[in-house]
Amino acid sequence: MQPCQLTASAAAGLIKERKLSCEELVRSCLGRIQMRDGEVRAWLHVDPELAIRNARELDKSSPRGVLHGLPLGVKDVIDTADFPTTQNSPIYASMRVGRDAACVAVARGSGALVLGKTDTVEFASSGRKALTRNPFNFAHTPGGSSSGSGAAVADFMVPLAFGTQTGGSLIRPAAFNGIYGMKPSWNVVSREGVRMSSVTLDTVGWYGRCAEDLALMAAAFRIPDFRQTIAVRGLRVGLCRSPVWSKIEPAGATALDAAAKRLSAEGALIDELVLPEHFNRLIEAHAAISHREGGASFLPEYLNAHDMLAEDLQAKVENALNISDAELLQSYALADACRPVFDALFGSSLDVVLTPGAPGEAPAGLHGTGDSIFNRMWTLLHVPCVAVPVGRGPTRLPVGVQLVGSRMSDARLLAIARAMAPVIDADPISGE
Amino acid sequence: MQPCQLTASAAAGLIKERKLSCEELVRSCLGRIQMRDGEVRAWLHVDPELAIRNARELDKSSPRGVLHGLPLGVKDVIDTADFPTTQNSPIYASMRVGRDAACVAVARGSGALVLGKTDTVEFASSGRKALTRNPFNFAHTPGGSSSGSGAAVADFMVPLAFGTQTGGSLIRPAAFNGIYGMKPSWNVVSREGVRMSSVTLDTVGWYGRCAEDLALMAAAFRIPDFRQTIAVRGLRVGLCRSPVWSKIEPAGATALDAAAKRLSAEGALIDELVLPEHFNRLIEAHAAISHREGGASFLPEYLNAHDMLAEDLQAKVENALNISDAELLQSYALADACRPVFDALFGSSLDVVLTPGAPGEAPAGLHGTGDSIFNRMWTLLHVPCVAVPVGRGPTRLPVGVQLVGSRMSDARLLAIARAMAPVIDADPISGE
Repeated sequence: MQPCQLTASAAAGLIKERKLSCEELVRSCLGRIQMRDGEVRAWLHVDPELAIRNARELDKSSPRGVLHGLPLGVKDVIDTADFPTTQNSPIYASMRVGRDAACVAVARGSGALVLGKTDTVEFASSGRKALTRNPFNFAHTPGGSSSGSGAAVADFMVPLAFGTQTGGSLIRPAAFNGIYGMKPSWNVVSREGVRMSSVTLDTVGWYGRCAEDLALMAAAFRIPDFRQTIAVRGLRVGLCRSPVWSKIEPAGATALDAAAKRLSAEGALIDELVLPEHFNRLIEAHAAISHREGGASFLPEYLNAHDMLAEDLQAKVENALNISDAELLQSYALADACRPVFDALFGSSLDVVLTPGAPGEAPAGLHGTGDSIFNRMWTLLHVPCVAVPVGRGPTRLPVGVQLVGSRMSDARLLAIARAMAPVIDADPISGE
Repeated sequence: MQPCQLTASAAAGLIKERKLSCEELVRSCLGRIQMRDGEVRAWLHVDPELAIRNARELDKSSPRGVLHGLPLGVKDVIDTADFPTTQNSPIYASMRVGRDAACVAVARGSGALVLGKTDTVEFASSGRKALTRNPFNFAHTPGGSSSGSGAAVADFMVPLAFGTQTGGSLIRPAAFNGIYGMKPSWNVVSREGVRMSSVTLDTVGWYGRCAEDLALMAAAFRIPDFRQTIAVRGLRVGLCRSPVWSKIEPAGATALDAAAKRLSAEGALIDELVLPEHFNRLIEAHAAISHREGGASFLPEYLNAHDMLAEDLQAKVENALNISDAELLQSYALADACRPVFDALFGSSLDVVLTPGAPGEAPAGLHGTGDSIFNRMWTLLHVPCVAVPVGRGPTRLPVGVQLVGSRMSDARLLAIARAMAPVIDADPISGE
């Protein structure tokens, strides 16, 4: 096994025991990138010399934190001190800000090595797509907007990477790339230094190749380790086909059923969860909030670089959907009303929600990134979501589900995900 | 009259008519800064040569927007492409980011000339105070955290300036400096590129020396001009002593009464407004949200520059107040519940709320910046607030009130403020 094929947790353990150096690990990741990225195209900026220099420094220094020596990919809508931040927009093609986003500063302060910037849908929003291909089939999208981060982790180029989610930009690529992904509760991780699209929706999260790795990154953000060991037996699982079930594809339906059956066989108690009627309108509220808040976010580019701004971002500034102030405020009110109702489901009668991570397998072509319809509601609810792979679909592409918890229950949700992962992810993706 | 003494609206008119050049205006502002800032200390960074160069370019170019040629001060927690952004923290003493915050990009895209960065309380939050003094009496604070922006506008160094408010950092300095200030509805102006303290509370706003100037800046942000002329006569004013009336000082009480009497004499209908009981808990909710969200915001500095971070910001990261997740969520729920209730007061029975802008006159000394107690509730409610000066208090320092509207009624509130300003602000502050 190459060092680049190690999970973050395994690599961290070996580094701690001095059985693996940061430099060896980074060189292995760089080798993988050199071998594969001409085709996968996950990365926008990598600096091998800088990476090796930083690795040597980490090898010499005492451990700085839980991520010591671990290479990290950063979606290029997130600022870093040592790379450009282009947002995959021609407007910012040569932009360097020289300051880490909050999430990058926390990861670096915990010992992570920023390996480079990964490709993204323009502004993590709309416009230019990433050039990244799905590592399982280059003719398919890896999903988006966290396209490069998802593919880089799936293709063993880096054990951990940051992404962001406003609609379904974290969990959907995790499902399409057969990896694990975490969207924390809103604002548990500071969004400072991350391109803003919608302040109510944008959420920073991360990818790893096992649930343990998601918890490792969470620890850096002081999402505490959930000490109590959780057994799958007896866990009450709400199987939520969600209000948008009509959008499911056969592969997604099969994956959800398989996950439920596997959990049930291990003693989990599966119950169909039907959300209250008014949750059906959350998708519409998401659209209204995304449109109007996007209008405020993209006004600078609209004024200063109008012709270089994608038409649907221009449309947001112009409020082309004609979302009135009253409708915007009603959308906020609906989300505000649903959040505590959803949280209250947990506790006495429910431990975790099991729901699709994406409609199905990654679609063919790089002109689109798939549909975020199974993610938007959870983003607006501000609840933590963990993507878990289920196996492969009919065309041998990965399929995935997500586990959802109540707001601020991130630690417990990760503990449940760690318990459930070996059960759900019964067809693990192995290194090539 | 010196050009620097002109209001932004008057200067914009003269520039448009080619009776004043941007260069003349900027030179006048720079002259004022040179004469006065050794004592006022409003500015952290000014570059006269760059300013004059930029002014000459604006003089040569066709009008770029409503702010064409107007010098602008920017609070130093807000990023600009051409100055350091130090946040008044030793951690970022030499930080330059090379990219405009969204609000700065919009102002620049509308023709404004960024004159420099103004002093601020460290991180607009806590720690080091600005060195700025109140221009009316150097032994007194100008308020904070937008200390430099408030003093610079009051002292005729610049006609417009950006500030931010998380507690009372915009409206309180406006009251203490005898100027006008606008805190828009939450997220009407993008907060991107502004130091984050609390994502739910932080709001970008601005200062001017008349209500008209506030509307001028609002136009740059596409807060539409409210076409209908509003007459003071018949306006229904809710006189809100607020749940924290016990904190009022004699000067603040006198100012509020004077404003109400002057409006009443002009035919406005003044009615005491007592908010529902549960609004009393908003101050507590503000504290809980500010503490917990600050914990996420200051984790990067806590990890990477621990000893240079103020103790009360360390305390937020450590959740020293022990605010539980449940208490945080209850605080969100309370605010979520109060917002539509407050909005619903308007329309059939109320046009505007009149309430104190600060407890009274600016306190003596530069070790503190005064109390934000009369501002926090409105910040958490996400409602637009406009600071209006009333005159001078017993020690000849300015006192002010604020007008408050429902969420997203920014345009109408500005129109009401423009109608009421000549009535309320009957002892206008004149140039020296």
